[in-house]
Amino acid sequence: MSLETETLGALKRSRTAARALALCPGVRKNQALVALAAMLRAERGAILAANAGDLDRARSSGMAGAFVERLTLNQARIDAMARSVEEVAALPDPVGEVIARWQRPNGLEISQVRVPIGVIAIIYESRPNVTVDAGVLGLKAGNAVVLRGGKEALASNALLAELTGRALESAGIARDAVTFVGNPDREMIQILKRHPEAIDLIIPRGGKALKDALAGSAVPLLPHFDGLCNTYVDRTADLKMAEEICFNAKCSRPSVCNAMETLLVHREAAPRFLPPLAARMRDAGVELRGCERARAIVASIKPAVDADWDTEFLDLILAVKVVDSLDHALEHIARHGSGLADAIVTSDRDAAARFQHEVDSATVYVNASTRFTDGFEFGFGAETGISTNRLHARGPMGLRELTIYKYLIAGNGQVRK
Amino acid sequence: MSLETETLGALKRSRTAARALALCPGVRKNQALVALAAMLRAERGAILAANAGDLDRARSSGMAGAFVERLTLNQARIDAMARSVEEVAALPDPVGEVIARWQRPNGLEISQVRVPIGVIAIIYESRPNVTVDAGVLGLKAGNAVVLRGGKEALASNALLAELTGRALESAGIARDAVTFVGNPDREMIQILKRHPEAIDLIIPRGGKALKDALAGSAVPLLPHFDGLCNTYVDRTADLKMAEEICFNAKCSRPSVCNAMETLLVHREAAPRFLPPLAARMRDAGVELRGCERARAIVASIKPAVDADWDTEFLDLILAVKVVDSLDHALEHIARHGSGLADAIVTSDRDAAARFQHEVDSATVYVNASTRFTDGFEFGFGAETGISTNRLHARGPMGLRELTIYKYLIAGNGQVRK
Repeated sequence: MSLETETLGALKRSRTAARALALCPGVRKNQALVALAAMLRAERGAILAANAGDLDRARSSGMAGAFVERLTLNQARIDAMARSVEEVAALPDPVGEVIARWQRPNGLEISQVRVPIGVIAIIYESRPNVTVDAGVLGLKAGNAVVLRGGKEALASNALLAELTGRALESAGIARDAVTFVGNPDREMIQILKRHPEAIDLIIPRGGKALKDALAGSAVPLLPHFDGLCNTYVDRTADLKMAEEICFNAKCSRPSVCNAMETLLVHREAAPRFLPPLAARMRDAGVELRGCERARAIVASIKPAVDADWDTEFLDLILAVKVVDSLDHALEHIARHGSGLADAIVTSDRDAAARFQHEVDSATVYVNASTRFTDGFEFGFGAETGISTNRLHARGPMGLRELTIYKYLIAGNGQVRK
Repeated sequence: MSLETETLGALKRSRTAARALALCPGVRKNQALVALAAMLRAERGAILAANAGDLDRARSSGMAGAFVERLTLNQARIDAMARSVEEVAALPDPVGEVIARWQRPNGLEISQVRVPIGVIAIIYESRPNVTVDAGVLGLKAGNAVVLRGGKEALASNALLAELTGRALESAGIARDAVTFVGNPDREMIQILKRHPEAIDLIIPRGGKALKDALAGSAVPLLPHFDGLCNTYVDRTADLKMAEEICFNAKCSRPSVCNAMETLLVHREAAPRFLPPLAARMRDAGVELRGCERARAIVASIKPAVDADWDTEFLDLILAVKVVDSLDHALEHIARHGSGLADAIVTSDRDAAARFQHEVDSATVYVNASTRFTDGFEFGFGAETGISTNRLHARGPMGLRELTIYKYLIAGNGQVRK
């Protein structure tokens, strides 16, 4: 049997499971999640053993430190996974929520009610905890999930998915509601993207290679791709506040999509702002690449090349540009930003308002770090991911963003004139 | 210059216009719409002349009556278009609407605010009034629109789009906010679907040929495709009410997507329900195609073939099936329905509740006609179309469904721990 035939068989079972799960009471879904948390703790030894195998293979194929670090499970990480599953169980069920309700002059009563999307495929990379985190969010929102993790975490992922299936079954839910497709190469992505009749949505979490692999997808995508975030320090900024915000936005976790990549500074603020910031950044190991005007203020800043304004470094590198005005900052962001998260630091209410009105990004900050672009930080109680899409969901995603709605209409014999 | 190069040049101007329109105050957008209504009335003669040319070409290429009817503009239709543009002007502006606002424990204030999607391409078929109707809805929601109408209405559409552009300009809005791409063959659709960097969304309104032409689109689609609507007459139905609802759902406008295509009748209701309904349908010219049990009750019903349960007739044809129970009706709908609009007629509250819970359709009716699946009938004040999608928007679409949102976050120096 070909891989495609086999996969389509599994997807057919996902569809059947999705139909049943959509009608499943919240209490049963929560039972499954609580059971999963217990299993993760009980099977800690087996999970660590599977993960050790993945780690051996990764090391022997020459993988680097940061990569291996992401791949690694340990007791603390497994406990954190189990706790997060319990937290999701405690969240309100989005399915069945009445979004709006109204009556028409002809007496029809219309309710807009939240329902699951259906079958959601999640494609992600090396961190094995995503198998559990993304899986339970999809399930809690009533969707069947199809998980395709990175090949390096194959053994860890397969076991975590197996435990999820067992937990579902223990609560009387078909284990087909979670399907792990373990095929190690990119062929599986090509199969998944060809079958819109079987999959309602693909959520790809990754970088450019994944984006390219999904080009021409017949299945709708809700991409979680790049972030090129800018912070603009205005003429009237509280410079101490600006320094704290910029330091946090760059250094607290440089490898993530909501980290700052470009700093824009108003020319009147730059002479006082840049020297202490540059010193602090240097101490933190950050390489600064700046325009000529920035370098005239801080000589140790390296010269930036054009590509730096368009690069998501995801590393301890920061591009620095001195601008003449808010207008120039807005132009720079419109041209070079990725529309994920941008911030202004200012004491000028009008400048703040203009910045928030005109910057077309998923999250636009005044006097705060771009690092808050995150489901937990937004108070969603869950981290589904951060959508870089302009349809369905934009920015941090919670459980609701994994649902759609239907309209229920109650009448007493109405017909259309 | 190739058609693709030329089109990409136009789309680049659309993008620039979209950026400006997103920030345009509602009052200016409304000025443009009011000006357009006046122009439609003032240029009635020219519009009728352009339309007469289209009609001549359609007739001489042998187009049939219903097609020519849809293509035809007359004084009443132009007046109706002008009035509908004024009605859209009178609707509240969706852009800037605060969907939700909350504060986090760390003091961050988060607002979710409605913004336009960007550049929306609308692909539609012969009715030229869609050029104006769809165009103004997209514009009111702050989007630049790219209109690709059917080739038969080329002259009518080009003039209507030209008037829309002039009206925009009269209100100080770039006329590039509306672009009519008049290329008469399907090549244009292939160009549009290849450029996600230029177009944020394609709304295709049409049938299978359009669906096929858009396969593999790199631009996200919000399809307005088929409807295979079912009505189930339950054991406990008020049979007089059921007859009125079925007659309306089938006969009031058989060519549209929310018309009933299949009637399911509980076996206990069938002997009393089917004979009078069949007589009335026959008088209205409806051809009935039924299962054996339906034919045993009404001999004049023709035998149905398997394909009839999966056919969107869009005509005076109705498939009729006698079922044993609500469960059988639900199974039939899950298997054969298209998920657009389905109805139950019943006096049993439990049956009604189960039907609405279990039928996975955009609109699920109790004791009313499926023909109400429509933006105006839902009270949206506008008819953007009826989405057959499971993402972003489902069912009748209003102005809000042509928008997305961004988050505005106000802080006083918050950084992430």
